Amino acid sequence: MIRTELTETFGVDHPILCGGMTGLGTAELISAVAEAGALGFLTALTQPTPEALAAEIARTRELTDKPFGVNLTILPTIDPVPYDEYRRVIVEAGITVVETAGSSPKPHLPDFKAAGVKVIHKATSVRHALSAERAGVDFISIDGFECAGHPGEDDVPGLVLIPAATRALSIPVIASGGLADGRGLAAALALGACAANMGTRFMATDEAPIHENVKQQIVANTELDTVVVFRQFHNSARVVKNSVSQQIAEIGAQPGATFADVAELASGARGRQNVLAEGDLEGGMWWAGQTQGLIHEVASVKDVVDQIIADAEQVITERLASLVG
Amino acid sequence: MIRTELTETFGVDHPILCGGMTGLGTAELISAVAEAGALGFLTALTQPTPEALAAEIARTRELTDKPFGVNLTILPTIDPVPYDEYRRVIVEAGITVVETAGSSPKPHLPDFKAAGVKVIHKATSVRHALSAERAGVDFISIDGFECAGHPGEDDVPGLVLIPAATRALSIPVIASGGLADGRGLAAALALGACAANMGTRFMATDEAPIHENVKQQIVANTELDTVVVFRQFHNSARVVKNSVSQQIAEIGAQPGATFADVAELASGARGRQNVLAEGDLEGGMWWAGQTQGLIHEVASVKDVVDQIIADAEQVITERLASLVG
Repeated sequence: MIRTELTETFGVDHPILCGGMTGLGTAELISAVAEAGALGFLTALTQPTPEALAAEIARTRELTDKPFGVNLTILPTIDPVPYDEYRRVIVEAGITVVETAGSSPKPHLPDFKAAGVKVIHKATSVRHALSAERAGVDFISIDGFECAGHPGEDDVPGLVLIPAATRALSIPVIASGGLADGRGLAAALALGACAANMGTRFMATDEAPIHENVKQQIVANTELDTVVVFRQFHNSARVVKNSVSQQIAEIGAQPGATFADVAELASGARGRQNVLAEGDLEGGMWWAGQTQGLIHEVASVKDVVDQIIADAEQVITERLASLVG
Repeated sequence: MIRTELTETFGVDHPILCGGMTGLGTAELISAVAEAGALGFLTALTQPTPEALAAEIARTRELTDKPFGVNLTILPTIDPVPYDEYRRVIVEAGITVVETAGSSPKPHLPDFKAAGVKVIHKATSVRHALSAERAGVDFISIDGFECAGHPGEDDVPGLVLIPAATRALSIPVIASGGLADGRGLAAALALGACAANMGTRFMATDEAPIHENVKQQIVANTELDTVVVFRQFHNSARVVKNSVSQQIAEIGAQPGATFADVAELASGARGRQNVLAEGDLEGGMWWAGQTQGLIHEVASVKDVVDQIIADAEQVITERLASLVG
């Protein structure tokens, strides 16, 4: 057992989070994460309506009576998203922890605070983390350059960003990005974090609600098999290297390229559907992090979590302890 | 005391290296590193001739009787460098450890092997590390995206690259890039490395033979104050963000830019001289890593090393040990 501010605050067994992953954060995966003793997050916006989120929370509760949270990713969108309604569903369902990401969580904090919901905000820089701390969030999940999805535009990896964040902040810090195993968890704890957030590692599990081809490709891929796209639009995203993402990167690198030039190729939800649901690995752009190079098998969520904890304990109590004379 | 394969092999007190830094790896700094119980490297090519290197080795030996090494950076150059002569000087001086960097160390290994000189090769990718292992080097210093100088073109930071390297290689791995304090050393050891190589941290020491302005600027800078230049020439270098490096980055980003377009600005040794010797921080391009964000004071080499070890021990024996129930 590894006990930290994360496990104590949320009443979970292990300082491991499965943060919000669009399309993956559904009852199947998140209940399995909860049953394994880690803290998982349903993704609110994976559900088409607030009512569907309420139903997904209820469905998760049928599968586990252990704690889990909901991710609320706040993005500028063309079609307005009824964030207030999603937030009300979260509060009314009695969810006790929310992971916010994207824009500032500030507008949502009064309601969450009033309901006693703890807020973990994802940030990719110390300055955004400090701003969220001032706004009143309870934990920061600091997301390094290695991560899948949106690493921000600063390109600071976890080895530097985690200790920089823990030094600057008063609230506890969760390490995110580049972590997939027990060595990574031990390193994150050494750098001052209270837990490790993992995404890609949980994609390659039996319970992840995605096509087997995707899981096997993550195992086959190395740390070199990602591409950062959309840098020129100040909306960088780390995605898996495939024909689609490489074409997007090439078009985007041309002088004067606009998002419209790649929007069709990027193909959003449709591409995700092609890949994640149908297993067509070249059918769209899809997300995974550099930790692909550290993932060598598909296993059950429980086996993954148990192995991470066993390895981290071995690193701490045997390897590291034996080096100190 | 922290004992690892590094300390045992080289007979040094601490698993900390001060790897080769052009212009800085001279007797003053490297003798101080040796006296502090860490393993430092004179930079062969900082000396204008092989004879000057022999003299610098002798000068270092007057200042310390503890072990130190020599860095031999192998680069394609317009003016041929007499590498064989530098190598002969190293061997004849009885140096027992060499850090190689740049191109393949292969041509130099037979002589070093024959003389019993151990070789640590710096590599920025697992594939280059494997190739150097096959060639017969003794240690790999794996250099992540965070590092000052040449991070390679793969953009894989230490959190992923260190465990990927330790898994792939049979020989011991030294972690390089992104490390400047005791938490970083503990994290590197947790990730499977046997030591931490630090460059920028040793620039901000009393004994570093550079202008005080540079040391104070490293302290003032944050993890955001670097720029990667020369990416488009497949010769990426992480340098400090200043007017010169930003101009180089901007010119280089224009379509069709060639190295000739930025060569004058980059200004090589002259720019380094302006900055490092004369303290004109805008007088050229100069190197430091993202660890600038983790360095908060100029101190003596001994105080820096002692603090890193004390902090790493505290992390291992107190913080981490207390988390495991």
